[in-house]
Amino acid sequence: MKLTIERAALLKALGHVQAVVERRNTIPILSNVLITAGSEGASFAATDLDIEIQESADATVEREGMATAPAHTLYEIARKLPDGADVTLELAGDDPRVSLKAGRSVFSLPSLPPGDFPMMPSEDLQTRFAVPSEALARIIDKTRFAISTEETRYYLNGIHMHAADEGGRKTLRAVATDGHRLALAECDLPDGAGGMPAVIVPRKTVQEARRLLEDAGDEIEMSVSEGKIRFKLGRAVLTSKLIDGAFPDYERVIPRDNKNTMTVDNKRFAEAVDRVATISIEKSRSVKLSVDGGVLTLAVNNPESGQATEELPADYAHDAFTIGFNARYILDVASQIEGDEARLHFADPASPTLVTDSGDADALYVLMPLRV
Amino acid sequence: MKLTIERAALLKALGHVQAVVERRNTIPILSNVLITAGSEGASFAATDLDIEIQESADATVEREGMATAPAHTLYEIARKLPDGADVTLELAGDDPRVSLKAGRSVFSLPSLPPGDFPMMPSEDLQTRFAVPSEALARIIDKTRFAISTEETRYYLNGIHMHAADEGGRKTLRAVATDGHRLALAECDLPDGAGGMPAVIVPRKTVQEARRLLEDAGDEIEMSVSEGKIRFKLGRAVLTSKLIDGAFPDYERVIPRDNKNTMTVDNKRFAEAVDRVATISIEKSRSVKLSVDGGVLTLAVNNPESGQATEELPADYAHDAFTIGFNARYILDVASQIEGDEARLHFADPASPTLVTDSGDADALYVLMPLRV
Repeated sequence: MKLTIERAALLKALGHVQAVVERRNTIPILSNVLITAGSEGASFAATDLDIEIQESADATVEREGMATAPAHTLYEIARKLPDGADVTLELAGDDPRVSLKAGRSVFSLPSLPPGDFPMMPSEDLQTRFAVPSEALARIIDKTRFAISTEETRYYLNGIHMHAADEGGRKTLRAVATDGHRLALAECDLPDGAGGMPAVIVPRKTVQEARRLLEDAGDEIEMSVSEGKIRFKLGRAVLTSKLIDGAFPDYERVIPRDNKNTMTVDNKRFAEAVDRVATISIEKSRSVKLSVDGGVLTLAVNNPESGQATEELPADYAHDAFTIGFNARYILDVASQIEGDEARLHFADPASPTLVTDSGDADALYVLMPLRV
Repeated sequence: MKLTIERAALLKALGHVQAVVERRNTIPILSNVLITAGSEGASFAATDLDIEIQESADATVEREGMATAPAHTLYEIARKLPDGADVTLELAGDDPRVSLKAGRSVFSLPSLPPGDFPMMPSEDLQTRFAVPSEALARIIDKTRFAISTEETRYYLNGIHMHAADEGGRKTLRAVATDGHRLALAECDLPDGAGGMPAVIVPRKTVQEARRLLEDAGDEIEMSVSEGKIRFKLGRAVLTSKLIDGAFPDYERVIPRDNKNTMTVDNKRFAEAVDRVATISIEKSRSVKLSVDGGVLTLAVNNPESGQATEELPADYAHDAFTIGFNARYILDVASQIEGDEARLHFADPASPTLVTDSGDADALYVLMPLRV
């Protein structure tokens, strides 16, 4: 194998694929990137056995073939090479090492047999459709903060994605919850996505796909089967296993009929919550909301670090009402609200509150209350 | 005590003093900032018993007096208050809590008796002089990276500062070493500094003084005694204990007579060292320099992660020579070199190498070689 590639192209491809490589690997080949020199240029691939990222790049191929090299090391070298450098990668003869040459720099890196690299079977996934990058990024951003980190509830460790049909409108819907809060965001259902199975996309896959979306152009391609999902993002292809589990029936948790609505300026609300939460108890981050007429009072009472209150105007036409929330959960939701106003729809102090966004009818959030 | 202060002024003063407060304190009062409302405005003080920072600020004082409040909490609140807010701090009657009011925010914070706050005795330190801020920042920056972190060698855990007189030129000199490398930088001796004792300024004091220098104006005042040092930096006063120990006779380590000089482009040299060091052994970061005629060859050989070599032009008119260094130490020095060229003055592969800066005759560095 011998190819020459511009440093910027190498850096971009390696930057995309190496992120999937774990820092510590018990299986040595998983620390490596697979380099393929083919008739159409170069391609780089890395995997953690659950996610595989492959990216193609323009390169001058002098001798077709494959090689592997340590992913993080190769990326670090590419990062430190001068901009504009031409980089030659070569695996030659009996030398088990990959050589990298650029200008007057020469590296010889340990290599493992390319045949040992565990490529995922490249089968076709039955449902395939195109999605605007901006729409996919949006539904990821508005839900991923609510993904559970509890490993025992593995079926909550990702974003649930499925084709929804509510009141005749068909959408591609993303839902995440950790049992304390839930986030739902959707976009118009792409052509061809109607038959997609309902899936749970693992957190790491969500993060990598979101990262690759930044460089992916206006539209990307998704394909989905029962067990796998694939994103074609520009010249990168991310293929991932899905979480094999049943996502809970989230619709039962969404209190769509909560009638007592309070409208607040989202930015002022978030800033005030953030301020009073400065002295909240580290673990629960509990903050009390009391609304009466046009005034919302936020209060924190921490036996160790003191008390805080703050008032702000609110639009609320129901009986005086008090409820407690984890401040961090409020702030997570507030940071995703696009409109000027957040709307909190209450039922009672022990039942979930629905939060909606004056600027986005295609997203909603549910917060479980804390006892205050 | 009752005072009203603009949020920006409060934030600046608290930002300066709270940095000295440790995250965990076994003595509760050390987590607090002392707030003084006096005839000339407000003053804030914090200490870790070794370093004390006091800063005055403009404020409207309604009732003179003192109070203490949790330093980090107060700083966080000030940070989160809206810009332009007027902040009222009050300790009133029998209430043991300090209240903070700003707009519609009200905080009540736990407070300890101001009498418990351990102020350093405010004696005069006998040698007092003014130094240009830029000159002090420069000699700190060029030496502090070499401060030892080995606690057992406590006398190396700071910057040695003293009045030097070499060949008739009088300077204020800073020296730091960890036994593997040494850095020396000096500036013209300020008027009145001639009689200062030779001192060792602890690492944390160096860092805090350097941070405060950013906001300190063109000139600052230093005063020094055998046991203490004080910096007046704008409206902040930092007083610190000194390290009670004997700094080694560093002049014996500086090989001022090394004759075999190699001159290299500093930026290219640093970049090349950084590149080949990518695959160096984590612990020693060993890189081999071989110079022969006009070519410097850098080489790293790591049984685990491969080999690297890079050549670059050098100006060297002596016999071929090979020596090894810790790459990180070379990079630390290179990052302080102002001129285009670094000059390495060699003796032999087992003796210290002197490094000088084509752009600054008032700084020098010594690197101990590694066996390669």
